[in-house]
Amino acid sequence: MFCCSQTGVAAEVPDYEVLYFPITALGEPLRLTLAIGGLPFKDTTPKTDPNFGTRKNLLSPYGDAGQVPLLVVDGKVYPQCRATLTYLGKKVKYESSPLYPQDPREAYASDELIELIEDFRKPMGATFAIKDQAEKEAARAAMFAPDGPMTKWLKVIDKRLASDAMKKLTIGNIYAFCVINMFRQPTFLDGVPKDALAPYQNITKHHNWVASLPPVLAYYKDKDGIRDAFKPLA
Amino acid sequence: MFCCSQTGVAAEVPDYEVLYFPITALGEPLRLTLAIGGLPFKDTTPKTDPNFGTRKNLLSPYGDAGQVPLLVVDGKVYPQCRATLTYLGKKVKYESSPLYPQDPREAYASDELIELIEDFRKPMGATFAIKDQAEKEAARAAMFAPDGPMTKWLKVIDKRLASDAMKKLTIGNIYAFCVINMFRQPTFLDGVPKDALAPYQNITKHHNWVASLPPVLAYYKDKDGIRDAFKPLA
Repeated sequence: MFCCSQTGVAAEVPDYEVLYFPITALGEPLRLTLAIGGLPFKDTTPKTDPNFGTRKNLLSPYGDAGQVPLLVVDGKVYPQCRATLTYLGKKVKYESSPLYPQDPREAYASDELIELIEDFRKPMGATFAIKDQAEKEAARAAMFAPDGPMTKWLKVIDKRLASDAMKKLTIGNIYAFCVINMFRQPTFLDGVPKDALAPYQNITKHHNWVASLPPVLAYYKDKDGIRDAFKPLA
Repeated sequence: MFCCSQTGVAAEVPDYEVLYFPITALGEPLRLTLAIGGLPFKDTTPKTDPNFGTRKNLLSPYGDAGQVPLLVVDGKVYPQCRATLTYLGKKVKYESSPLYPQDPREAYASDELIELIEDFRKPMGATFAIKDQAEKEAARAAMFAPDGPMTKWLKVIDKRLASDAMKKLTIGNIYAFCVINMFRQPTFLDGVPKDALAPYQNITKHHNWVASLPPVLAYYKDKDGIRDAFKPLA
C-alpha cells in the first residue's frame, strides 16, 4: 500500500487501470501486485471494453506498435510490463518492505530472477506462429521433453528457487509465480503437458508459498478457470 | 565511481571482471558503465582466456545453461546482463547522479527504454539460426525494409528519444546507445544495411550526445574496428 506522506496524512490512492487480455500471462503480475497492495484497479479487457484495440493504440505512447499490458495511473500511461512492475514494486509494500527491495543486492536478486524467467519463457514464443493446431501442440510438448529448451531452464529455476527466494516477497517472486503458472494446468496454452511442472520440488514449494500468502489467497479465492492454477496445490 | 562511506573515507574499489565475447552487443553496456565510473575491470574474452567456456560454466550459478556476459565482483558472480546493469547503475554516478535514478519515475523511464530496446532487438534473434550466408544476410536486410519488424521499433525509439532522454545519463541511455550501435557500421552483424539508422534524427542526436560525453569519448578513443561505431559521427 502507498506510504503515508511525511506529514503523517495518508496520501490519496491514485486511480489505477490495467489494460490486458483476460488471460493471466504478462498482465497478471501487475494485477496481483496491485491486489497485494490493496490498491483497487479497473481490470479492462477486450471482454469488458469493445473498443479495447482502438483505445490501447490511442493510449500507448508507442501508437500502433504498442503492446499490452498497459498500466494507467491517474491518466498517465505506463507501457512495458517489467519496467511497470518495478515501478509498482517501489510503491507497494508487503510486511513493511517494498516489493522492489531497497537494498541493491536484494534488488539484483529480484531483477535476476525476472530475467531468468524470461529465458525460460522465450522458447515458447516461436510456437504462437504455428497455424496447424496439432503441429503447435506437438511443438509445445517438445519444449518440456527431457532435452527440451524449457526443461533446461526449469532445472535452473528449480535450483535458483532453493536459495533465499522464499524468505521475502519481491516482484521477482511475483513474476516467477505468475509466468510459471502459465504452464500449470488449467492453462490457456494448448499442448503444455499436464505434468510439465511436477518434477520440480522447489518450484512447487515456491508456488505454494506465494499462493498461500493472505492477499494472494484472497485475490484468487473467488476466481476460477485458468486462475485455479494460482491457488495452493491440494 | 563508488561513493565514499559515511565516515568520509573512500571505500576500497572492488575487483571487477567482465566475461564476454570480444564483440560489443550485451557485454558492452557493462564495460561502458564500469568505464564511466572510472572502475578498472579485467576484460576477459575467449581471445584472452583459452579456457573461457569451461570457466564460464564453472562460474555461472546456472551451470552449463549459463550465458554471458557475467560480471564478477570480488569473486561474486552476477549473471543476467540487465539485472547486473541495474545493480551497477546504483553504484556508478555521473555528474553526481547514480546512473540508475533514485526517483521512481525517472528510474521507470530508464527501465522502459531498456525494454523498448529489447523489443527492437528481438526480431534479429531468429536470423542467427540461418545457416546459409546469403539467406541470413537477406533476412537481416529485410528487418530494416520499410515494413520490416525492426523498422517498426526504430520509428518508436526515434520518437521516444525526442523526449527527455538526452537530459541525464542513465543506464537506459547507455543500453540504448550500445544495442542500437550493433546495427551501425562497422558492425559484426553481416547483412545489416549500411544506412539502417540514417533516417532517424533523434537516434543520431542521441548517439552523438552519449558518444561525446568525456568518459565515453575517452573509453573509445584508442579502440577501433567495430568500436568505431561508438565514436561521434563525423
